[in-house]
Amino acid sequence: MSKRGEFDLIAQSLASLSDAAQGLGLTDDAALFEPTPGHTAVLSTDTLVAGVHFLPDDPPRDIARKALRVNLSDIAAMGAVPKGYLLNLSLPDDVADTWLDAFVAGLAADQQVFGVTLLGGDTVRTPGPFTVSVTAVGEVRLGRAMKRAGARIGDVVLVTGTIGDAVIGLRVLTGKAALDPANAKFVLDRYRLPQPRTSIGPYLAGLASAAIDVSDGLIADLGHICETSSVAATILADTVPLSPAGRAAIDAGQLTVSEAMSGGDDYELLFCAPPETRDALSRLSATLDVAITEIGEITAGTGVELIDGNGEAVVIDRPGHTHF
Amino acid sequence: MSKRGEFDLIAQSLASLSDAAQGLGLTDDAALFEPTPGHTAVLSTDTLVAGVHFLPDDPPRDIARKALRVNLSDIAAMGAVPKGYLLNLSLPDDVADTWLDAFVAGLAADQQVFGVTLLGGDTVRTPGPFTVSVTAVGEVRLGRAMKRAGARIGDVVLVTGTIGDAVIGLRVLTGKAALDPANAKFVLDRYRLPQPRTSIGPYLAGLASAAIDVSDGLIADLGHICETSSVAATILADTVPLSPAGRAAIDAGQLTVSEAMSGGDDYELLFCAPPETRDALSRLSATLDVAITEIGEITAGTGVELIDGNGEAVVIDRPGHTHF
Repeated sequence: MSKRGEFDLIAQSLASLSDAAQGLGLTDDAALFEPTPGHTAVLSTDTLVAGVHFLPDDPPRDIARKALRVNLSDIAAMGAVPKGYLLNLSLPDDVADTWLDAFVAGLAADQQVFGVTLLGGDTVRTPGPFTVSVTAVGEVRLGRAMKRAGARIGDVVLVTGTIGDAVIGLRVLTGKAALDPANAKFVLDRYRLPQPRTSIGPYLAGLASAAIDVSDGLIADLGHICETSSVAATILADTVPLSPAGRAAIDAGQLTVSEAMSGGDDYELLFCAPPETRDALSRLSATLDVAITEIGEITAGTGVELIDGNGEAVVIDRPGHTHF
Repeated sequence: MSKRGEFDLIAQSLASLSDAAQGLGLTDDAALFEPTPGHTAVLSTDTLVAGVHFLPDDPPRDIARKALRVNLSDIAAMGAVPKGYLLNLSLPDDVADTWLDAFVAGLAADQQVFGVTLLGGDTVRTPGPFTVSVTAVGEVRLGRAMKRAGARIGDVVLVTGTIGDAVIGLRVLTGKAALDPANAKFVLDRYRLPQPRTSIGPYLAGLASAAIDVSDGLIADLGHICETSSVAATILADTVPLSPAGRAAIDAGQLTVSEAMSGGDDYELLFCAPPETRDALSRLSATLDVAITEIGEITAGTGVELIDGNGEAVVIDRPGHTHF
């Protein structure tokens, strides 16, 4: 089949992911995005390269969903509601039709889960590895976007869900750690497929003073908030929420708490809030069935300090995780 | 220098292209874009790959500006005003600092020319060729976006500027054609550096029934309008506007009029409008100093027909240009 023919097929396949009103069926030069009155558009973009950001033999369905979800996580961290996305694909000559079909099926599945549609994009050939950029588009009420700046001394530090699963998942995947089958499956899923906190993100927008999603690692990302907000933070290591699988890995000596907090790809929301929001956050957590755990506080100074169960400062070897 | 260090330098360099209000100094998870009340956001994205969409030894300054400008052209074709852009860079290991500096300088220069700022982006490593995706963000008054659909039987077909310069420029560049130095420089510039019609695009939004920018070639792009609008078009070959350099190339037998209309990368605006808009378009052309030429009309049926000076139909061998 000629390349032109292949491209037509891809275009047809992708067009099924778009809607007529905003994506214009992908037949136009550009997409339209009209925020709800009183809202501002929020744009997040990430590029994933085969062999750099995922294993070349990862399932294409998961690669597609990961590319979309890491951006939806950023949208959630701004307190915004995701609405759509743009897709840039650079395809090597040897990419198989079945591989692309599975990739598109992954996007279609996640469009249902997250209520987004394909707004536009570009597909090109590359002599290099398969490369995908997703640009997620969302909206947030005017003036309510959560930013990294805004944390105040005396704020509490909180995080959704559990921390460290993805880093142990990567170790299991690469044969550097072993867990029992159920725990191994859990952490592998957590590594392969981020669960962006899109349900709770928009509700935090009125409560949190600053927010970020945990992609570089809890400590590194809290460091980003501290730097941008010109404050410091103290974290109580014992309070950092772990999954049963994460706890099992630590108990088996396959992971330390410090490593759990240095590993990335958790895609949980890490945020700061005034102490008086505790009750509201507790109700929100119960209503949405999303765990929120208080893990520390914002202080004067610079940097992130980690305190163990004896009140001693823990040395952090490696604050940031460089992705696979 | 470690890769981390290099990335920090790039981040610093790119941060100088952003503004604090919308791009948040590139320090946040996502960018904010707030359309003016009564306007909708317009998003266009294109990916350029070294060795596929530009020559690897093209000046980095020009590559940057081309990546930005092809998207600004799409924004103009929607009748929108460009406001900002997102930038995704995939960098090979051997990319030189001086090369990147020149690339960023190209963006900085064009930000001044077109009144846009960097809103956000992502920079990653790739084992493949240098790859850049630009996502341009603009705005257009609600309900006023020009689309490919909308051309009506009886509309006239018009185009800005001149057609065919880029295709002869590419021939000169690759040694397949020769022109005198002044003409050669003109067509090379037209090939290397698109001049998106951002000044006139927004003013056409109230007048044109359908529009597109000429990137695949005049005939192919008019074909896109016809297909989406369910109409046909007749073009009078003798009326298609040529630059003095394009005319010289044709007179010297180095290009045919049909080839000029099949070559791409003109980045002019091709649009349809009711005949009664002629006076308004004429005044607009004079006010903005942008040539607008009437080249044909919309008819019933399908496809694009080209008529020569004797009223005979011209066979079109190659309606679309596959980019370099």
